[in-house]
Amino acid sequence: MRGATDAGAEETQMNEFDLVLPSSVDVREVGMRDGLQLEAPVPLEAKLEMLEALVATGVRRIEATSFVSPRAVPALADADQLAAELQRWPEVHWSALVANPRGAVRAVDCGMADLEYVVSASDGHSRANAGRSTAEAVAAVGEIAALAHGAGGSLEVIIATAWDCPFDGRTPVARTVDVARAAVTAGADQLCLGDTIGTTTPLRVVTLVDAVRRACPGIAVGVHFHDTRGTGQANALAAVQAGVTQLDASVGGLGGCPFAPGASGNIATEELVYMLEESGVRTGLDLDALLAAARVTEQAVGHELPSSLYRAGGRSVPRSAGGR
Amino acid sequence: MRGATDAGAEETQMNEFDLVLPSSVDVREVGMRDGLQLEAPVPLEAKLEMLEALVATGVRRIEATSFVSPRAVPALADADQLAAELQRWPEVHWSALVANPRGAVRAVDCGMADLEYVVSASDGHSRANAGRSTAEAVAAVGEIAALAHGAGGSLEVIIATAWDCPFDGRTPVARTVDVARAAVTAGADQLCLGDTIGTTTPLRVVTLVDAVRRACPGIAVGVHFHDTRGTGQANALAAVQAGVTQLDASVGGLGGCPFAPGASGNIATEELVYMLEESGVRTGLDLDALLAAARVTEQAVGHELPSSLYRAGGRSVPRSAGGR
Repeated sequence: MRGATDAGAEETQMNEFDLVLPSSVDVREVGMRDGLQLEAPVPLEAKLEMLEALVATGVRRIEATSFVSPRAVPALADADQLAAELQRWPEVHWSALVANPRGAVRAVDCGMADLEYVVSASDGHSRANAGRSTAEAVAAVGEIAALAHGAGGSLEVIIATAWDCPFDGRTPVARTVDVARAAVTAGADQLCLGDTIGTTTPLRVVTLVDAVRRACPGIAVGVHFHDTRGTGQANALAAVQAGVTQLDASVGGLGGCPFAPGASGNIATEELVYMLEESGVRTGLDLDALLAAARVTEQAVGHELPSSLYRAGGRSVPRSAGGR
Repeated sequence: MRGATDAGAEETQMNEFDLVLPSSVDVREVGMRDGLQLEAPVPLEAKLEMLEALVATGVRRIEATSFVSPRAVPALADADQLAAELQRWPEVHWSALVANPRGAVRAVDCGMADLEYVVSASDGHSRANAGRSTAEAVAAVGEIAALAHGAGGSLEVIIATAWDCPFDGRTPVARTVDVARAAVTAGADQLCLGDTIGTTTPLRVVTLVDAVRRACPGIAVGVHFHDTRGTGQANALAAVQAGVTQLDASVGGLGGCPFAPGASGNIATEELVYMLEESGVRTGLDLDALLAAARVTEQAVGHELPSSLYRAGGRSVPRSAGGR
């Protein structure tokens, strides 16, 4: 069976491949919001300990909380109190998620003017998650943007189900692009593409990022991946290769899916930082400090976190061997 | 805070990025060997059920077992009996791992002539795993290659600790390249680079693959990744972008590390296939059949498998929503 050698000869005639990556990226820590929102409520004091540990990692963009109905999301019912504490860390660029203009008013009143607003690209998810169609959700962008801008802040529209919807199936690229364009026209300052249910894959990532950028020149496009099917870090790698420099991640991979028990949630911040820093992409985050923050987070939520890197004990290699 | 818009403008001036991928790759299923080797012994009958399920996935390269000391690896003590059953599936290209010429004789006597032989690129791992230095391990390649070739087969040398060693730290690229060159000179027909402890990252993958190919023109170079730190699929993506078309993976992600309880083992075949097929890379493997094979495997080993995709229930999306 020497045929393999011939296949090899073919391969080595290929052009060399260079992994072209940006020199740095900007990681946003979303564990405090997307991570905690489905957890049993964590006391404010424990959240402040998490924040202390997260700020110590060097991360300078943190999604702190959301101003939504306390009945809908009891875990984040303390948004007003939490917001009042954030001045402790003036070096951090804080953002907060809102679900409607009422939430935006509340956030601005709490001193948070850099807002995120979610629009589901699919009607099925939009109705299930927000009780209205995509078009109705888009219609609120202008008012929320005006509130943010009036307070000296900015509005990022996060497009949920940008690739796939649990109700409607695949989201056509043109549909997500239309939502992106409409959001920017209505006043969004930046966009984020959310793989809400963790189904997308590298080629689809690159295709959608490219399409949205063409449709919205001059607008930063970030990405928000879940690792539900093991492709989260590969998707992040593809996005970064495509020149995306704004990535969401959650400490310890916090952020489970209610419909997939045991499945991973957001991509883990420490895994993203490990992959990128070791590949020469600066994040400004310290891996050991991230593992310490994951420990604080694990104590706060009272259960194991899904991050493989965290469970493996970090970058370093235990001094006992096995396998190949 | 409108600064983000300026950053976006910069981004959109970048050239478009194309994810260039091969049209097809060749996945080798290693769950029967690397996956089972650290498990409590599974009865032969259950192994044959696993094989039946694996062959039904469409995979046409399977690492069936290893011919090593039954005392060292009791889980694979039935190699001779297993080998006798493989003629049931003549469509599959079987391989077996051997640790020395004695094992090669045994494999060939059992009708298995396509052999794999592991050489650790680092002395620390080589001594711990095989009781000899890297140079001593390389010295056996010629004899094993002659045995394989004499039986009409081939020899693949798997370079363990190709990137990192749990004892010696980082393996210099030049050291792994030297081992590769020496193995080929001694008669190896193909090579496989093993990330034994799951520490490597995309840029290092591309760098080493490129260096080994330059040193060994005409020789196929495969990759063997573990997902211990969440980077396994991203490493596979980088390798495939670099033109690698031979990848090892294990059904369900079977194959734990003895020194990192709870950490993932080999990259999961179904996650690799999902990522690649959805990105337009043909594998010949059927995802639903892989999930069925993972169920059979889970029953055989009697514990949960680490694969996120398997735990999430596959590609399809349950009809209930949450999160963004």
